Amino acid sequence: MNPDIIQQVRNNTPLVHHLTNQVVMNFSANGLLAFGGSPVMAKELKEAADMAKIADALVLNIGTILENEVEAMIAAGKAANEKGIPVVLDPVGVAATSFRKEIIERILQEVHPTVIKGNAGEIASLVNADIQTRGVDSVGEGNIDDIAEKAGKQFDTAIVVTGKTDVIYAEQKLIYNQTGHPLLSSITGAGCLLGSVAAACLTTSYPVVEQLRSALSFYGLAAEHAAREPHVQGPGTFLPSFIDALSFTPKQLNGGTVDGI
Amino acid sequence: MNPDIIQQVRNNTPLVHHLTNQVVMNFSANGLLAFGGSPVMAKELKEAADMAKIADALVLNIGTILENEVEAMIAAGKAANEKGIPVVLDPVGVAATSFRKEIIERILQEVHPTVIKGNAGEIASLVNADIQTRGVDSVGEGNIDDIAEKAGKQFDTAIVVTGKTDVIYAEQKLIYNQTGHPLLSSITGAGCLLGSVAAACLTTSYPVVEQLRSALSFYGLAAEHAAREPHVQGPGTFLPSFIDALSFTPKQLNGGTVDGI
Amino acid sequence: MNPDIIQQVRNNTPLVHHLTNQVVMNFSANGLLAFGGSPVMAKELKEAADMAKIADALVLNIGTILENEVEAMIAAGKAANEKGIPVVLDPVGVAATSFRKEIIERILQEVHPTVIKGNAGEIASLVNADIQTRGVDSVGEGNIDDIAEKAGKQFDTAIVVTGKTDVIYAEQKLIYNQTGHPLLSSITGAGCLLGSVAAACLTTSYPVVEQLRSALSFYGLAAEHAAREPHVQGPGTFLPSFIDALSFTPKQLNGGTVDGI
Repeated sequence: MNPDIIQQVRNNTPLVHHLTNQVVMNFSANGLLAFGGSPVMAKELKEAADMAKIADALVLNIGTILENEVEAMIAAGKAANEKGIPVVLDPVGVAATSFRKEIIERILQEVHPTVIKGNAGEIASLVNADIQTRGVDSVGEGNIDDIAEKAGKQFDTAIVVTGKTDVIYAEQKLIYNQTGHPLLSSITGAGCLLGSVAAACLTTSYPVVEQLRSALSFYGLAAEHAAREPHVQGPGTFLPSFIDALSFTPKQLNGGTVDGI
Repeated sequence: MNPDIIQQVRNNTPLVHHLTNQVVMNFSANGLLAFGGSPVMAKELKEAADMAKIADALVLNIGTILENEVEAMIAAGKAANEKGIPVVLDPVGVAATSFRKEIIERILQEVHPTVIKGNAGEIASLVNADIQTRGVDSVGEGNIDDIAEKAGKQFDTAIVVTGKTDVIYAEQKLIYNQTGHPLLSSITGAGCLLGSVAAACLTTSYPVVEQLRSALSFYGLAAEHAAREPHVQGPGTFLPSFIDALSFTPKQLNGGTVDGI
Repeated sequence: MNPDIIQQVRNNTPLVHHLTNQVVMNFSANGLLAFGGSPVMAKELKEAADMAKIADALVLNIGTILENEVEAMIAAGKAANEKGIPVVLDPVGVAATSFRKEIIERILQEVHPTVIKGNAGEIASLVNADIQTRGVDSVGEGNIDDIAEKAGKQFDTAIVVTGKTDVIYAEQKLIYNQTGHPLLSSITGAGCLLGSVAAACLTTSYPVVEQLRSALSFYGLAAEHAAREPHVQGPGTFLPSFIDALSFTPKQLNGGTVDGI
């Protein structure tokens, strides 16, 4: 992790515009605020371009997408591309229905994401690779490195494949992140909020690969820290402590040995 | 309670599809995850049938229903009926407006729910019985047994009437549940999440009446357990501990005397 | 603060109807429940008037407004005006896009709010005054007293300008509130929930200026109380304790010296 990336976010409080799913809006907003960003969430086509003009980054997440929201996503994405601000695309549940697959194809035809972030099943689906999925969750095994690289080359973006080990493909490199905690998969929207945190890190002045590595490492350390809190007894009490931890410094999260990460 | 019903849910992590209200989506998703199910939430008509194909149960909740969402509810419900998976219908606030009454009538003409779950005012409204209501809450008294039985026969479904004593009508039997805690009525969506928990239990291999009794008993015990936590001082701190408790075993919730329930 | 205003709310549990933004619905509902009100949230045009008939107050909040939701807001607002129940208008992010400015103008042409509540940038935007804004947040300084008075006169309503010092303009008076805590700006929707709490207080039998002063004073004291809880370590753990504190008595919040406030 590069602690200066986290610090830059907190110095600049980047405005991250979200067209995201209804389940996670409150959690993503609170998590991003804790981390040091400033969330905006709106889905009206008529203000999509205006919002992009004031934003520093954009998150597109199709978790509860409706047909009549797609145009606003595309308009926001195109405006972000024109302005040159980073775009994180989260193809939630894309393997679950043909509707979602078509939506993602439409978005990818018109918007160039900086990063596509998903679980193995979602990223595999984008490149028609074969990984077992179930609902919006990925349950199978597969050659995730290959899938990440294939998707990265096909869409000319960085790729984040979340899992027990997160795989990042960016700038022709494959790197891995091992921080994290199983309780993250017991709360809804942990992957979605990671997209917001990554978007905030992408507004800093570092290479994408380093920004993503720092976002994922920090996020996982925050989860580990929260899970160690003595009062945490399950996913319900984990959640507030995890949001707290997102506001801490890298040093606070791992006892000061941040240089080694 | 039959602890094996809870255990089966946790072994199978049933995928419960929700077309539910915007207020409770995050809470319902987190509560169901803690309990052992896997939530999916989506309202687009174009994927309603596809989602039903991968789901193990369906929750329809009209708490914030829009006219243009009704078709997706009906499509999801019909697909669930065809597939033979359980459907929980929650007629939130049906007594409050004629719009909601018409919506529920349209849904009930086309979808056969496994269970209709509501407070006394809501269930009474479905059978045109007279119970005092206020907004989306039921405040009056009435012969709830009669109303539950009448609704069950009229719609050929099981009925759950939530209240200080919950009334279950299923398989020509009336049974009661006394577990629970007043703090449940101080948090929004406690009834809605109960629908999700019941839906998960309905995917197990037991009679409906036993599934519902176990769902309600467990849910109430989890609330009692959370309310006993020393740090809980009100509805805000109750909520995370309640979600924790939903992840516990029946034995953890009542100190091991589970057989007696 | 007038503790009797808080007590009246708790005696009457006023039904507060909301057409509000998707990010804060759950938080606003839980916060209002804790405070002693009863939330209803619905956006369907076809039931807007019926819901107003059963409600005691109305909150209109444009935080995630869609073009196709404006008519329901106007219908609800007009029905509330006809019935004579208080209306709180929260012009979230009105300075951010021309779309939002037009929406607010349309609403204000047809609905007469009892109170308009916003941050300095939002209220300034309504009267075309010049204050620096950023996204949905106000970051600049300005003559807030003048802006509050100008807006109050122009729209013939009370005005609440939230900030480090809150400014209330009502009944030709300017008064100030100093209670509060910085953690309120670390959680999303703190301003939105204040609108719900104010709406509940507006249903009591006191002058508007006293109702608003009590709502703001109580709300800030609740935040201060929560921030003092030893287990609160950041915005995540602050939130549940803040909701708890909203359910406390004025005496509990400040150690019994309530008369002096």
